[in-house]
Amino acid sequence: MEATAVFERTPLPPAFVDAMSERFCQRFSVAEAVRTHHGHDESHFPDALPDAVVFARSTEEVVFIVNTCREHRVPIIPFGVGSSLEGHILAVRGGISVDLSEMNKIIALHTEDMDAVVQPGVTRKQLNAALHGSGLFFPIDPGADASLGGMAATRASGTNAVRYGTMRENVLAITAVLADGRVIRTGGRARKSSSGYDLTRLLVGSEGTLGIITELTVRLHPLPEAISGAVCAFPDIVDAVNTVIQTIQLGVPVARIELLDALTVKAINRYSKTALRESPMLFFEFHGSPSSVEEQARMVQDIAHDNAGLDFEWASRPEERSRLWAARHDVLFASLNLRPGSRGISTDVCVPISRLAECVAATRADIDASGLIAPIVGHVGDGNFHCVILVDPNDPAEIAHAEDLNRRIVERALSMGGTCSGEHGIGIGKQDFLLAEHGREAVDVMRVIKQALDPDNLLNPGKVLPPA
Amino acid sequence: MEATAVFERTPLPPAFVDAMSERFCQRFSVAEAVRTHHGHDESHFPDALPDAVVFARSTEEVVFIVNTCREHRVPIIPFGVGSSLEGHILAVRGGISVDLSEMNKIIALHTEDMDAVVQPGVTRKQLNAALHGSGLFFPIDPGADASLGGMAATRASGTNAVRYGTMRENVLAITAVLADGRVIRTGGRARKSSSGYDLTRLLVGSEGTLGIITELTVRLHPLPEAISGAVCAFPDIVDAVNTVIQTIQLGVPVARIELLDALTVKAINRYSKTALRESPMLFFEFHGSPSSVEEQARMVQDIAHDNAGLDFEWASRPEERSRLWAARHDVLFASLNLRPGSRGISTDVCVPISRLAECVAATRADIDASGLIAPIVGHVGDGNFHCVILVDPNDPAEIAHAEDLNRRIVERALSMGGTCSGEHGIGIGKQDFLLAEHGREAVDVMRVIKQALDPDNLLNPGKVLPPA
Repeated sequence: MEATAVFERTPLPPAFVDAMSERFCQRFSVAEAVRTHHGHDESHFPDALPDAVVFARSTEEVVFIVNTCREHRVPIIPFGVGSSLEGHILAVRGGISVDLSEMNKIIALHTEDMDAVVQPGVTRKQLNAALHGSGLFFPIDPGADASLGGMAATRASGTNAVRYGTMRENVLAITAVLADGRVIRTGGRARKSSSGYDLTRLLVGSEGTLGIITELTVRLHPLPEAISGAVCAFPDIVDAVNTVIQTIQLGVPVARIELLDALTVKAINRYSKTALRESPMLFFEFHGSPSSVEEQARMVQDIAHDNAGLDFEWASRPEERSRLWAARHDVLFASLNLRPGSRGISTDVCVPISRLAECVAATRADIDASGLIAPIVGHVGDGNFHCVILVDPNDPAEIAHAEDLNRRIVERALSMGGTCSGEHGIGIGKQDFLLAEHGREAVDVMRVIKQALDPDNLLNPGKVLPPA
Repeated sequence: MEATAVFERTPLPPAFVDAMSERFCQRFSVAEAVRTHHGHDESHFPDALPDAVVFARSTEEVVFIVNTCREHRVPIIPFGVGSSLEGHILAVRGGISVDLSEMNKIIALHTEDMDAVVQPGVTRKQLNAALHGSGLFFPIDPGADASLGGMAATRASGTNAVRYGTMRENVLAITAVLADGRVIRTGGRARKSSSGYDLTRLLVGSEGTLGIITELTVRLHPLPEAISGAVCAFPDIVDAVNTVIQTIQLGVPVARIELLDALTVKAINRYSKTALRESPMLFFEFHGSPSSVEEQARMVQDIAHDNAGLDFEWASRPEERSRLWAARHDVLFASLNLRPGSRGISTDVCVPISRLAECVAATRADIDASGLIAPIVGHVGDGNFHCVILVDPNDPAEIAHAEDLNRRIVERALSMGGTCSGEHGIGIGKQDFLLAEHGREAVDVMRVIKQALDPDNLLNPGKVLPPA
C-alpha cells in the first residue's frame, strides 16, 4: 500500500484532456462517480481513483489512447468489470482507466473447431449464453461474471480448472496493443504450435502490464452428455482433503471438487438458506457419458467412504445442482455476512496435492490461534484454497494482523513447493511474495521484459513487479 | 541456408580453448568425430559442425561455459540427443555445442504429486523406465527417444498430445542459465499459478535461444487402467479425416488418433513386415477404465462406419499394440526406405480441425501434381500432419522443388488459420514462415525479448528469428 502513500499525483495535462475529449466526447469522463466506479474492486485495498475514464470501442481506439497517453506520460489501467481481488484496477499511480466493457462483441463462434473469438469485454456468462444450443460451453468459472479479457490478464481459473485447465490452457490467441502503440496478434486457431516464442502465454497473467488485450480466442469444450453432482460431509477437514488427494491420484477425471470448511458451510446455510450439515464438506461434479459419470461417482464415493465420509448426497437434477453451485459461488458474500460491515482479505495459495492436507490443517490451526474469523474454501483438486479473512476496514491493527496471517499462509505454502497465487494474480498486495516465490533472478528477468516492452512504465504501473 | 553460406567462421580464441580445456579436460573436445556427431541432426539441412563440443555435468558447469563463451564472444548451441528436425543444433554460426546428455539424472519422482524433476539429458524412455511400477507415465511421445530438455526447448508433442497435451502443458518448472550467466528458476510444483509472468512457457519452445535448460519439472499421468488399440482402413483419405473430425467434435477422449495415407502404409508394410491394407488408415488408441475404453471404441467405430470405414481391427494385446506403434514410429525410416539414399524434408503444419479434410486433400493433390514422393502421416486429432518429402540430397533442383512444395503446404495451412509448425519448431528453415504466420509486429516483439535477454546473440544464434 506504500505505493499509494508515496505517489505524488500529477494532474492530467490539459492537452491530453483536450485530445481525449475531442476523440471520445462523452466516452471520456472525469466525473467523480465514473472515476469512483473504476477505482474500486473486490479486494480489501483502499479505493484508488483514476484521473479519468475512457470507454474504448475498438482496437484502433485503444491504439489512439495508448499513443496519446504515451505522448503525455499518463499511466493506463485496463478495466473489465472490476471483479479482481488483488487491486489490479486501482489507480495507485493515477492515470486513466481504459474501460473495455463496451468491447463486448462475440466476433466468431467456430463451433466445429470448438473456439470463440471475442472482444475483451465479453463476460463468461455472456459467452455461455451465446453458446446455448451449440453443444459447447466455456468452462472457466471464477465465480464472478468476469470479463474474458480480465480473466486472461489475471490467468484466472476457478471451480472446474481441475478438469478443463485455466486461462493459460484455454486462451489460444490474443490481439494486444503494446505500450508503443504497436498491435500484435499472438497465437492462432490451431490446437498446438511450436512456432516461435509463446507470446500468448506471456500476455496471459501479465495483469495489463505488458499490453492491453483487445481480442482473444478461447477454447470451447463439448457440453458433457451427463452431469451429476454430490455433496459429502466429513468429521474432519483432513479426511475431506485426503479424499481429494486420493481421487486425483487415482486419475478420476472429476470436473469440480470443492472443499468447504465447517465455518463456510455455516455461512452458506445462513446466507443461502440451505440446510447443509455444518461440518467440513466436499462438493463434487462429474462430467461425461452417463456410464462414465456413474463410474466416476462410484469411485469417489468409495474413496470418501474409506475416509470417514458421512453421507453422499446426490444432486442429479439441474435445479439442485444450480442451487448448490450458486451457494458455492456466493461464499464470499456469505462469509462477509458472518461479520456485517467487514471486508474480506482472500488468500489464494496452491500447493502440490501431496501437501494439501498438511497445509490446510496447519492453516486452519493458524487461523484459530490468530483469533481472526476466516472460513476456508478451495478448488482443492488443483491444491488451491482460499481463506477469507474477515476484517474491519476501519481497524488498521486488525488489517495488519490479518496481513500477518496471510504472510504465514503464503510462507507455509511456499515452503511446501507451492505458489502465493493460484488464480487471483499478484496485483499490488503480493509483490514481496512474488520475489519470495521466484527469487530475485527470475523477477529481474520479468523486469527486463517489462522494461523492454514498456520502457516508460505506462501500462498498469505499480502492479505485479516489486520496486527494484 | 543462406546463413550458413554467408557466415564467416572465426577460429576459437586460444584463451577460450585454454580456459575450457583446463576446466573440462577430456570433456572439452575439438576432435572432428565429436564435432561431426554434434553438427548433424535428423533434418535435411547440410551438416554444420561446431568448433568444439563440451559435455556439461551440472548447472554450475553450464554457468561457467556461458560466462566463458560470453567473455570470448563464442556462440553456444545446447545439444540433447540430436533428434531435432529443423536444424536446431547445427552450428550455422560456429561456436560450441554444449552436450547435456551426461546431465541425465532423475532428481526426484514425486509420484503422489504426479511430477518428476529431471536433468535435461534424461530421455523420455529413460523417464518411463524409471516410472515402471509407479502406476504413472510420461505421455509425450514424439517418436524419437528425445531428451526432455530438447523436447521442452522445441515445444515437442507427438502421437498422444490430443489427450495429454504438449510440452507446453506438461512442463511445470524450469531451471535455466541465461546469456548473462544468471540462473533462473521458473514455475513451481503447484498445478496452477497466477504468480507473475509465465517465464516457463516463454522458455518452452524458445529453441535454446533464450536460455539453456539445466533442470525441468514435468507432469506425469496415471497409467490408464485399460488400453485398447485399433486400426481402420478407409477407401479415401477424406473419409478417414472426417472420422477424426467427428470424433474430436463429439468429445471422445481418444489417446491417439493417427492418419497414414496409402503410401505410408505401403512403406510400413515393406519396412516393418506388416500386412496392413494399403489404403488410407487410422490408428487409434483408447485409454481409461475398461468400460470407458469400450465405450470410446464403440463410438469411434460407429463414426468410422458412417464414414465408409472398411474394417476395424482390434489390437488389444500389448504385443500387438507395441508392434503397431513401433511401425508407426518407424514411419520416417520406412518412408526414406521407399527411395534408398534419399533424405526427408518433413513438413509440419497444423490447422483448425474443421479445415483438416480440405487441407489434407489439397496437400495430397499438390504432392501428386508435383511429381515428388511424399507420404502423409499425422497426429490428426490436433489437426497436425506431416508430409515426408523424399529428396536426393545431391540434387539441388529437386530440393528447391521440394521446398516450393513445403512453402505451398505452409501457405495453405496459414490461409486456413493454421500454423507452420505443429511440433518441430522453427530452427533455421522456417523463419520466413514465422514471419508470415505471426506478422512483423509480433516477430519484432520476439526480437525485443531476445535482444533484452541475450544482447550479444550468443545463445543458438541464427535460429527461430529471421534476420531483422
